[in-house]
Amino acid sequence: MNEFARVAGSDALAFARILANDHIADIVEALNGEPHDVAAELLAEVPFERLVEIFDKPELEAAPELVAMLPRARAGKLLAAMSVDRAADVLRELAEPARSEVLGELSPAVRATLLSILGYPEHSAASIMTTEYVSVPPDWTVGRTLDYIRKVERTRETIYAIYIVDPRTQELLRALSLRRLITGNSDYRILDVAPDRTPVSATPLTDREDVARQMSKYDLLALPVVENGRMLGIVTVDDIMDAMIEETTEDVHRFGGMEALDEPYMKMGFLPMIGKRGGWLCALFLSEMLTASVMQHYEVELEKAIVLTLFIPLIMSSGGNSGSQATSLVIRALALREISLADWWRVALRELPSGLMLGTMLGLVGVARITLWQHLDLYDYGPHWHLIAATIGVALIGIVTFGSLTGSMLPFALKRLGFDPASASAPFVATLVDVTGLAIYFSVALVILRGTLL
Amino acid sequence: MNEFARVAGSDALAFARILANDHIADIVEALNGEPHDVAAELLAEVPFERLVEIFDKPELEAAPELVAMLPRARAGKLLAAMSVDRAADVLRELAEPARSEVLGELSPAVRATLLSILGYPEHSAASIMTTEYVSVPPDWTVGRTLDYIRKVERTRETIYAIYIVDPRTQELLRALSLRRLITGNSDYRILDVAPDRTPVSATPLTDREDVARQMSKYDLLALPVVENGRMLGIVTVDDIMDAMIEETTEDVHRFGGMEALDEPYMKMGFLPMIGKRGGWLCALFLSEMLTASVMQHYEVELEKAIVLTLFIPLIMSSGGNSGSQATSLVIRALALREISLADWWRVALRELPSGLMLGTMLGLVGVARITLWQHLDLYDYGPHWHLIAATIGVALIGIVTFGSLTGSMLPFALKRLGFDPASASAPFVATLVDVTGLAIYFSVALVILRGTLL
Repeated sequence: MNEFARVAGSDALAFARILANDHIADIVEALNGEPHDVAAELLAEVPFERLVEIFDKPELEAAPELVAMLPRARAGKLLAAMSVDRAADVLRELAEPARSEVLGELSPAVRATLLSILGYPEHSAASIMTTEYVSVPPDWTVGRTLDYIRKVERTRETIYAIYIVDPRTQELLRALSLRRLITGNSDYRILDVAPDRTPVSATPLTDREDVARQMSKYDLLALPVVENGRMLGIVTVDDIMDAMIEETTEDVHRFGGMEALDEPYMKMGFLPMIGKRGGWLCALFLSEMLTASVMQHYEVELEKAIVLTLFIPLIMSSGGNSGSQATSLVIRALALREISLADWWRVALRELPSGLMLGTMLGLVGVARITLWQHLDLYDYGPHWHLIAATIGVALIGIVTFGSLTGSMLPFALKRLGFDPASASAPFVATLVDVTGLAIYFSVALVILRGTLL
Repeated sequence: MNEFARVAGSDALAFARILANDHIADIVEALNGEPHDVAAELLAEVPFERLVEIFDKPELEAAPELVAMLPRARAGKLLAAMSVDRAADVLRELAEPARSEVLGELSPAVRATLLSILGYPEHSAASIMTTEYVSVPPDWTVGRTLDYIRKVERTRETIYAIYIVDPRTQELLRALSLRRLITGNSDYRILDVAPDRTPVSATPLTDREDVARQMSKYDLLALPVVENGRMLGIVTVDDIMDAMIEETTEDVHRFGGMEALDEPYMKMGFLPMIGKRGGWLCALFLSEMLTASVMQHYEVELEKAIVLTLFIPLIMSSGGNSGSQATSLVIRALALREISLADWWRVALRELPSGLMLGTMLGLVGVARITLWQHLDLYDYGPHWHLIAATIGVALIGIVTFGSLTGSMLPFALKRLGFDPASASAPFVATLVDVTGLAIYFSVALVILRGTLL
């Protein structure tokens, strides 16, 4: 890549040599390391066929910007030659007026296909599908199908999945693998070689995570997208791999309490990054302000028993930790379809004893800590130290139980309301449990310490 | 699945019919819903060929237990017929004495292959590779290769990737796709049809996440595993998809502060689950106890200015939130190889101004909150309320900056020490930042409030 950067712009011949020998993925990586104008200059030298291959890689970061820098006619030709799903991706992010101008260069048929894909919501199966798949009528033979595949191979995103489609109704009848095809007798009817069952398929609105699960479950290299029995396109395994890597990134960022970055960390502008992080931090900060209100409410008690304040951070964090444990468990089980929305009460019945048990464990450790410190003269909690220990112990049981229950139920609630459970649960569970944890703590203290410290 | 459960055990004929028509994945799902003894009974009726297909699915949860329940000779025959990577998976979890006994049933060659795969660490490329791939000598023609593939198809995990291997040295020379092969002229030498470059490959110890990244980058359906130039096996895309789903689960559980569950949430025994959660909760609880020590250290100040305690939860959580943001950013960037270990100072140089800016934002909101409450008579922070506001504001700048820096550096430190950065960072960053956050808060208070409140 360094060598590539060195020759870039200076020695077009050397560049051409690298272009001819390197993996497309490596060329894309090298282009990603260049400023947009240098990349555009380099791409001007590239033969059209190679250009298409380069833009077909979803890893090319500045694809929309680079397309916008091309002459409109060449941009139109490029989009028409690219795989449909990638072309739709580029169009989605292409700024106006380039977008309308490039669309104007396309043939009506290509334009209609692209606009129909663009009409589907992000992360849906249809938004990442391609219409470039192999379909054949049911009366063809194996041999004829193979000949056909050899002919159209260059224009199809995959040829490893072959779909038998009714030419009149576009109904998807059967699916078979190339593996099955090439081992079949070439005179047999393709319908007799294909497995005798309805193909697994997705609807246009199926979430891409579900598409991934289906493909993984049935070991497919492509999943057909079907609406009202009509076949619309396929999602291929390499697009799904890319989508999964992106989803994992989003989940991790969301768990960390921020909007997912859509650009690499080191490449992202400073201010956009502050924006993605600052918004969430401020939202969480504003909700956490409720803790100050709770504390103000118990100010009289705090003044009487300053020793109570010593354990506030410990109590709060225990609630938060148990809550985020339960949240992560339930989010993942929901994502893997191990449980469904209707199972909420089953989960609640599991988390209640779990929370009680985990809370009791922590409570005992807390009581042991206070007893030990008191007896070893490490700290003097006063004459009522055993009551304070009891307060901490009981409060921990209550808070961990509450945290586990809240943490496990919130993903259900978010999902029920139509949100992605992964998108907001973890940090908000922590905030919710912090606020209620304080209230639980002080309530327990009021009951146990009344007449002595309070 | 319900229908399946109903007929199970009672009507072997109906079961046989389902077996014949359903997707293997659906049969596996149904078997997963049965107790082990019922599943074993049902499997006793299954023709051997189908049995192999069922056990080849990684989704079959009780595979080791079910193999242990088979007569040893049948178990040995089954393992020998299964795909090598799956057989190794089953053996890995097979309890003694079943393990040794089943190994004794295998031919020396199969046993040696399986034991060599078992010798590689979990999550390595070699541990999920299969040795059942298509390899041909460089002097074969396209036609001969195709004939060969048709013949060996049934015993290969994939035939979509074909490897040209020196028959003497086992050196991997070239790789090509079936796509390329079937469109090639059948008289051409295969070496002339294959792309003229060294194939992308992994070493036996490459982490499976890196294998996934490579396959996604180069759009491969299989990645060869090569050691000292010799080809050992391949990792296929469906194994990698399964591995990625598992990795995501592990990451989410780790982020939630617990050991990853290796069984579905609803199926896991109560006590094992408490064990996986309780250990981490206790570890975090013990570290958080340091907050109590910090608080005890500042007890005198707390008694003098009880108003300071009101903001402790708010201050702590802001530090924790900014820390986990930075951690999630860096973990993900490291996982995607956007940054490497050597970039730590670049990240630090980015997180320092980010933390200062985010801290200033939160600080201003905090100051505004106190000023507003004071002026609206919602709460009386006393005559020195502006000094308290200043304390909160300055402390937030310090804590958020510290949180962002610590959170971004810890994954580097963990990785440097050989740990998986995702495995522990998030909850421990929160704990670390909680403890130091309190110290920062009280130090700021001592400086600003000295002579007035303190």
